[in-house]
Amino acid sequence: MSNLKNDRFLRALLLEPVDVTPVWMMRQAGRYLPEYRETRARAGSFLDLCKNPDLACEVTLQPLERFPLDAAILFSDILTVPDAMGLGLYFSEGEGPRFHNPVQDEQAVRALGVPDPEQDLGYVMEAVRTIRRELDGRVPLIGFSGSPWTLATYMVEGAGSKNFSKVKGMLFDRPDLMHHMLGVTADAVTAYLNGQVAAGAQALMIFDTWGGVLSPRDYRAFSLAYMARIVKGLKRENEGRRVPVILFTKGGGQWLAQMAETGCDALGVDWTTDLSEARRLTGGRLALQGNLDPCVLHASPQRIREEVGRVLESYGRGTGHVFNLGHGIHPDVNPDHAAALVQAVHDLSPAYH
Amino acid sequence: MSNLKNDRFLRALLLEPVDVTPVWMMRQAGRYLPEYRETRARAGSFLDLCKNPDLACEVTLQPLERFPLDAAILFSDILTVPDAMGLGLYFSEGEGPRFHNPVQDEQAVRALGVPDPEQDLGYVMEAVRTIRRELDGRVPLIGFSGSPWTLATYMVEGAGSKNFSKVKGMLFDRPDLMHHMLGVTADAVTAYLNGQVAAGAQALMIFDTWGGVLSPRDYRAFSLAYMARIVKGLKRENEGRRVPVILFTKGGGQWLAQMAETGCDALGVDWTTDLSEARRLTGGRLALQGNLDPCVLHASPQRIREEVGRVLESYGRGTGHVFNLGHGIHPDVNPDHAAALVQAVHDLSPAYH
Repeated sequence: MSNLKNDRFLRALLLEPVDVTPVWMMRQAGRYLPEYRETRARAGSFLDLCKNPDLACEVTLQPLERFPLDAAILFSDILTVPDAMGLGLYFSEGEGPRFHNPVQDEQAVRALGVPDPEQDLGYVMEAVRTIRRELDGRVPLIGFSGSPWTLATYMVEGAGSKNFSKVKGMLFDRPDLMHHMLGVTADAVTAYLNGQVAAGAQALMIFDTWGGVLSPRDYRAFSLAYMARIVKGLKRENEGRRVPVILFTKGGGQWLAQMAETGCDALGVDWTTDLSEARRLTGGRLALQGNLDPCVLHASPQRIREEVGRVLESYGRGTGHVFNLGHGIHPDVNPDHAAALVQAVHDLSPAYH
Repeated sequence: MSNLKNDRFLRALLLEPVDVTPVWMMRQAGRYLPEYRETRARAGSFLDLCKNPDLACEVTLQPLERFPLDAAILFSDILTVPDAMGLGLYFSEGEGPRFHNPVQDEQAVRALGVPDPEQDLGYVMEAVRTIRRELDGRVPLIGFSGSPWTLATYMVEGAGSKNFSKVKGMLFDRPDLMHHMLGVTADAVTAYLNGQVAAGAQALMIFDTWGGVLSPRDYRAFSLAYMARIVKGLKRENEGRRVPVILFTKGGGQWLAQMAETGCDALGVDWTTDLSEARRLTGGRLALQGNLDPCVLHASPQRIREEVGRVLESYGRGTGHVFNLGHGIHPDVNPDHAAALVQAVHDLSPAYH
């Protein structure tokens, strides 16, 4: 394995000193880039792109060619795991992800099993290996998964949802079934992430996109508990280096202190909580990643620079901050505006180190 | 004006003792009721229903015929105000509200004016008068409006939105324009709510459905500040009684203490913040309304009863609690489940008073 030429991202996650605040953007490999749209058109469907390791590698590297980012993130989809569990993932144009076989009764829940990463998700493992080889140590590679609760919302609803009636109906009426599904899914995610580490992922992120739609009690019992179980089951060292784990619950600002107790290395923070407040809540014991409102990228480069400055100032002095958006970059953002964000972090952050 | 036979709702909002925790449900007059769907079909479109005072009165009263609720809420839509400002509201089937003339440039912002409630929104004022007459003092009538920020999201986007790119693009790039639009809209909402009070509304609620998508700084500057301005401009007494004002920012759990400073009488709380925490944050200085997850109504009546008990227990002993959902009741809820909620509040809450 090649030596890492830029390890700012890993160092900040481990609270080690850095010269500049590291920066990457959620969904940095995505539709806002014309070169992504070109590769995607060549691949066929979105799922074809995810399942082709060479093309997944190609789009993973595209944003790094444009911007001096400090990390790459595996191009994939959070729903590969339920797909490998037999749910039959497909994407209907303009309507997002769907499952042929949603999990809506006891029989379907009891039938769920834990996929083998190399056998059932070999295309992801192969993508990780290919990307690591092509990255050649430029920056670290982040592997990721959806959280069990977030995956369960799609698995039960069979698609994206607004109200989450079906999955919460099951949660309230059959908590036993919901816990069984989340347990199996947590084991699947643990194996999947450990597979990614074995294949070369140098940091891991768990996306809990829908934990924020739960009550505090239900969040603890049905989302946080299973993320904690995953964190405990992960291989935390590889190639002689610690593999940091980032947890991100969108809308989870009220629960950061509890999330910090899971043993993860860092928390993602969305823009509805100031980093100063997040740092206070977590006592500086772990790193924070975020948290520019992605909508700022619709404003002028000058405004983007000012808002980047505000986020840096909110975190304050010292290591432990990974600059990011508070959610994925929007498909209709001008790539020059993403460049302005990265440039501003590089220009303005050295004063904080 | 008739004497009020049941004033539990108003008493709890003013922190006066009550025998039973008052209860109503957001969107209690709505699609989950077959009798609503029947009236709606007779009316024609949703907007026809809103604009017909007799039919608006009919659907307002429907849930009171079924359940022993402690308040009625005017049947209307939050977008009547921008419609009266000339934006041309319409509803496209299955796609929600839209405007013929969204506000997307400086000229459109500068052209905005404050509608006269009786002249330009006479159908709402007439609905309030009709409902008050037909209610005949059974329970108080709640008037309402959207918050300026929430109205602005629809006014700029021209429809519902997922990312709020356009309205936030304007907020970041042209804060001067955004403040102008919010100022005019706040004046419009103030006049509209005062008109409702003059017509007979006995309490007021401001729905800030989209304040929770802002950063803490932007929430204060672009949403909370304008709600505070409205609260200061409202007529707070009518017919010899105080007219309480409830503010509700969905996703605003982190900002309850700041919301309490506006001078309102009560805060709506969604289910992502426990009432015990909300009561701690606001020091018991004002009433709280909420906060059952609307998805609980998809579970069995026995589970609904347990969850109602949890919400009551979370608020704890004493007055100042108005039981409600944390968001509007879903259209696919079984009305018998709504009945179970109301019954549970009546059965379980006396122990707390």
